[in-house]
Amino acid sequence: MAPELGPALDRLWQVIQSRRGADPQTSYTARLFARGRTKIAQKLGEEAVEAVIEGVGENSAALVAESADLIYHLLVLWAAAGVSPADVAAELARREGTSGIEEKRSRANL
Amino acid sequence: MAPELGPALDRLWQVIQSRRGADPQTSYTARLFARGRTKIAQKLGEEAVEAVIEGVGENSAALVAESADLIYHLLVLWAAAGVSPADVAAELARREGTSGIEEKRSRANL
Amino acid sequence: MAPELGPALDRLWQVIQSRRGADPQTSYTARLFARGRTKIAQKLGEEAVEAVIEGVGENSAALVAESADLIYHLLVLWAAAGVSPADVAAELARREGTSGIEEKRSRANL
Amino acid sequence: MAPELGPALDRLWQVIQSRRGADPQTSYTARLFARGRTKIAQKLGEEAVEAVIEGVGENSAALVAESADLIYHLLVLWAAAGVSPADVAAELARREGTSGIEEKRSRANL
Repeated sequence: MAPELGPALDRLWQVIQSRRGADPQTSYTARLFARGRTKIAQKLGEEAVEAVIEGVGENSAALVAESADLIYHLLVLWAAAGVSPADVAAELARREGTSGIEEKRSRANL
Repeated sequence: MAPELGPALDRLWQVIQSRRGADPQTSYTARLFARGRTKIAQKLGEEAVEAVIEGVGENSAALVAESADLIYHLLVLWAAAGVSPADVAAELARREGTSGIEEKRSRANL
Repeated sequence: MAPELGPALDRLWQVIQSRRGADPQTSYTARLFARGRTKIAQKLGEEAVEAVIEGVGENSAALVAESADLIYHLLVLWAAAGVSPADVAAELARREGTSGIEEKRSRANL
Repeated sequence: MAPELGPALDRLWQVIQSRRGADPQTSYTARLFARGRTKIAQKLGEEAVEAVIEGVGENSAALVAESADLIYHLLVLWAAAGVSPADVAAELARREGTSGIEEKRSRANL
């Protein structure tokens, strides 16, 4: 059976939460929290640059790896900013249907 | 009950897949597919810039909205590149435990 | 004779400064100033994404065009933030010689 | 007298060119060239993320420093891609006047 993204994200979120009080010397996640939200946002941006580069290229395994890095840093940023996965799930749900992203984007001149 | 991110992503992925053959005139997603992978990667980068800016700021609702935009464009990029959510779930699972992102990152000089 | 970048940047800077009080309806630069520094920084980030994409590719004319866009938005950001080209020139000069970027970067684990 | 950006960029360009054949062990610029254009573009993107973050903030000295980093990596990318400062100067000159960036951007729905 193929692994599912939802449960994988749930576990990742639990790991990130559990690292909040961990030792920055031994935990990368704890180190990120210690450096603060601006640094976490910067790392997110750096991972996005890598995802963009791999997205343009032909190496899908590299895109998978950069996507995992991007998602990890995004979740750390959420944790640092007091945002929960449920908040984002609610936003995605809100966009479904007639008020969905399709509608929103179709009205914009993108 | 709080909405869950996993099911929301599943639904988003289904919507994106269903828009592959849709009319670019009426579907933003179809328009992205028509413009190609480089353009989709560019949009991902632009949304990441917005997420970074909101990540630095204090408006968590804006961070939630930009996160939803970022995730949407990331999933469209996966679809365009032949990557599935299961591929990324497998990558995240692979990193759990002793070979997890914690370990990987802790060894790197980040 | 080949055009020189220095004088071109001087003229660009003069144009940008002259647009500060212009009508946002007719001047893109005035519109950027009106939208504020966060929006200008966002545009800088978006142009950087495009420069990165062209930097990876083989179309050097496209890289030239995106570089011009990037520089333009960087100068607008300087103007909006009260930074002058002379400030950046002084920073670049400061890094020359033994305290130059070579030294700084060689000591860092990049 | 205030330092001028044009001459500072000319000197920076000369330094970058002179590092092409240098030892990657001792020269950061030579190391960048050795890692190739994709890595240089990635570094440009990372510096842009930092410039965006400082552009949003209030620390103009930090914006100056990040701008210098951004310009340095942009020039290294030009060198690696066979683009010269004169190419970019010509592009900026081409946009002056009635076909200038003002006109171009004013017509676009930005």
